[in-house]
Amino acid sequence: MTDNPTQALCRFLAEFTLDDVPTPVVEKTKDLFLDWFASALAGKGTKPVQSIARFAQAAGPQDGSAQIFCTRAYTSPYFAALVNGAASHVVEQDDVHNGSVFHPAAVIFPAVMAVAQDEQRTGAEVLLASIAGYEAGIRIGEFLGRSHYRIFHTTATVGTLAAAVAVGKLWGFDAERMAQALGSAGTQAAGLWEFLRDAADSKQLHTAKAAADGLMAAWLARDGFTGARDILCGPQGLAAGMSSDADPSRLVDGLGTRWATAETSFKYFASCRHTHPAADALKVLMVREQLAWDDIEAVTAHVHQGAIDVLGPVLDPRTVHQAKFSMGTVLGLVAVHGHAGLNEFDDHALTDAKVAAFRDRVEMLLDAEIDAAYPKQWIGRVTVQTRDGRTLEARVDVPKGDPGNTLTREELQAKALQLARYSDSASQAEMHELFARVWSLEAQPHVNDWFGARR
Amino acid sequence: MTDNPTQALCRFLAEFTLDDVPTPVVEKTKDLFLDWFASALAGKGTKPVQSIARFAQAAGPQDGSAQIFCTRAYTSPYFAALVNGAASHVVEQDDVHNGSVFHPAAVIFPAVMAVAQDEQRTGAEVLLASIAGYEAGIRIGEFLGRSHYRIFHTTATVGTLAAAVAVGKLWGFDAERMAQALGSAGTQAAGLWEFLRDAADSKQLHTAKAAADGLMAAWLARDGFTGARDILCGPQGLAAGMSSDADPSRLVDGLGTRWATAETSFKYFASCRHTHPAADALKVLMVREQLAWDDIEAVTAHVHQGAIDVLGPVLDPRTVHQAKFSMGTVLGLVAVHGHAGLNEFDDHALTDAKVAAFRDRVEMLLDAEIDAAYPKQWIGRVTVQTRDGRTLEARVDVPKGDPGNTLTREELQAKALQLARYSDSASQAEMHELFARVWSLEAQPHVNDWFGARR
Repeated sequence: MTDNPTQALCRFLAEFTLDDVPTPVVEKTKDLFLDWFASALAGKGTKPVQSIARFAQAAGPQDGSAQIFCTRAYTSPYFAALVNGAASHVVEQDDVHNGSVFHPAAVIFPAVMAVAQDEQRTGAEVLLASIAGYEAGIRIGEFLGRSHYRIFHTTATVGTLAAAVAVGKLWGFDAERMAQALGSAGTQAAGLWEFLRDAADSKQLHTAKAAADGLMAAWLARDGFTGARDILCGPQGLAAGMSSDADPSRLVDGLGTRWATAETSFKYFASCRHTHPAADALKVLMVREQLAWDDIEAVTAHVHQGAIDVLGPVLDPRTVHQAKFSMGTVLGLVAVHGHAGLNEFDDHALTDAKVAAFRDRVEMLLDAEIDAAYPKQWIGRVTVQTRDGRTLEARVDVPKGDPGNTLTREELQAKALQLARYSDSASQAEMHELFARVWSLEAQPHVNDWFGARR
Repeated sequence: MTDNPTQALCRFLAEFTLDDVPTPVVEKTKDLFLDWFASALAGKGTKPVQSIARFAQAAGPQDGSAQIFCTRAYTSPYFAALVNGAASHVVEQDDVHNGSVFHPAAVIFPAVMAVAQDEQRTGAEVLLASIAGYEAGIRIGEFLGRSHYRIFHTTATVGTLAAAVAVGKLWGFDAERMAQALGSAGTQAAGLWEFLRDAADSKQLHTAKAAADGLMAAWLARDGFTGARDILCGPQGLAAGMSSDADPSRLVDGLGTRWATAETSFKYFASCRHTHPAADALKVLMVREQLAWDDIEAVTAHVHQGAIDVLGPVLDPRTVHQAKFSMGTVLGLVAVHGHAGLNEFDDHALTDAKVAAFRDRVEMLLDAEIDAAYPKQWIGRVTVQTRDGRTLEARVDVPKGDPGNTLTREELQAKALQLARYSDSASQAEMHELFARVWSLEAQPHVNDWFGARR
């Protein structure tokens, strides 16, 4: 009897071992782990993360076996996953998989690390479990397609399933139990883009709940609690309710040969990924043409529809976080300050009159070629009108951070150091010790006490 | 400036007081409260509830200010809401609002009681908060419409928002904060019917998470955490993502004059509400015509489409819980044993050859008139072929338990006593003390220690 796609996916997820994973994919996962960990630190002190941490303190135990990394407090694995999930996404520096438009790190690593710390699991087990989460989440995101992403925040919805798979892999689930965990995760999958319109705090709630709910779904499956066997493709399942262009063949695309984990991109700018291709192209153009910001009269960013869906509602950003979803602000920071990193956002995104002036010179335009290539490829293209009457154009086919134009380990370390410094959440010495542990993660006997003794 | 429907709903929810609520509606809410509390007790010892209670013990604190009623353990309000939410729905005896196809009690009272116990709130405050939850949830369910219910379990999705409103009302939220709470609740709203196909445990996860997530949404809103301002009608909100026939006018239907709380029905049979109209009609027919079960050759239950959507997947029930979603089994219990209550299900639903034989004589048929009247009216109609060649028909326009054919307080007490006895979760003396407290709930100084001292 032939497996249906959900069964085939679950069987693969249950059966593969770290020996099956090519070494470059394991090495890339360590890169992703470090990049995530620094993002989780960077969330320290932000308002939504503090709020969710206060909730964890009110609702959960006052101590436990799993660490909230940015505050170094301990709690139960469920609440560690919740708060670390919230913290990992707030500065918009965590990774992204282009084809699925899914941020895997923010939801997968918090769930895996919480359980791994609770059970003194090894670094190799953390890597294996996390890869399972990436392989599942990326394929499920691709399966649900673009219609899903128009309304639903894929990292929230699919993130719940990816976190459940990752924890299930840590616990050695067989294919049947993996399907049960997906069932309990999928029936909790939620997260709407509506918050963007109001610059509300929901994005942190989404990653928090995806990590924690996914962990809960796996916990329940381990306990014998059952879920729908085909929550993905069933007639009253996820695709039926939340997608109009679902493609089940994506669930099994290249299982065991295509390692989707390695396709994941790092963020170079501290903004929504949909702004990056155009920001890259503008940077290239301004260097090539030796332009200063005020030489530019107007910019047209040629984009895919998804960029318009997500960035379109943000017309007049009122918070730094909302400014990360404003194409005009991002291009303004690049044009005026040469980069749109964390510090540029904090120092200039809302207060710099030049950036605001530039913002009003930017418009987005749907581009048929770019839209057709998306989401597999995120092409950047800008057309610039100069004050002296020229029309210039630049195009970047592989934006910085994509696998074909990735960050080196030196660049990743520099980014991690900046994130830790930005949030004042770890010393440079602690970060260097962390780098050594991460680069040998597959040999670490456990993942507890990352920052020395409990305090 | 005119409010949009979400703003108008939030303003009403924030502003009404118990003095605005007609006395019969307050009295009905006490009926609903008792009926719920007995349902929450009846969940004791069932597998999914035990599983969720074990999760609460692993993830949450070991003690707290809020009680899990069926086990009498104490925990934090969040986990009390979670476990009581799971317990309230498992025996399928909790209330239902016809027009919204929403089970309000199972998600609203657990959240309200958890916070009320934590803060020593009065019985009057519990009533006011709960009525706010009912008024909001029923209207939001009607707003999302039939297309939503085809795929999504309204009690799970809408239940999250109703629980958030109820807790927000307990905390005296103004209209703006009520909208924020709805935003954080709506972006967590989830729950798919797919589990029915596999007789999986998800229904208990749905009510558990709706109560707990709703409480969390309100908690975050009180803490200043923001959500989308119009999660209901916004272009990337709930209706946009999860309904194709949403009607915003339903959100404000009769605010302050129509008390939807009082429209809620009690369950008379221990099965899915969609089976009740036909079960009532069959009972009437068999009494009228003096038929025994084996006089009947075939039964056609004329139903609305929603019944086919929910009951259709259950062809061969394998668990008692799944049997509650089998029209044939329910009619078989009524025909062979005269009733389809808790004991009939446990003793006969899966093991009685006569019930199984009768089940195979039952078919459902979509009826245009019944479907047009639904969900406002749940008409029951059966056609019976007798062994001696007659074709008989019976029809019930107002099924037992609906407001026009409701349960008296004596019947509600008898049902509550049966539920407590069934689960062995409270003595008859304790239940009688409870009755006295509930019938004077508006005068109770607090709702703590329902079952004597903490143990």
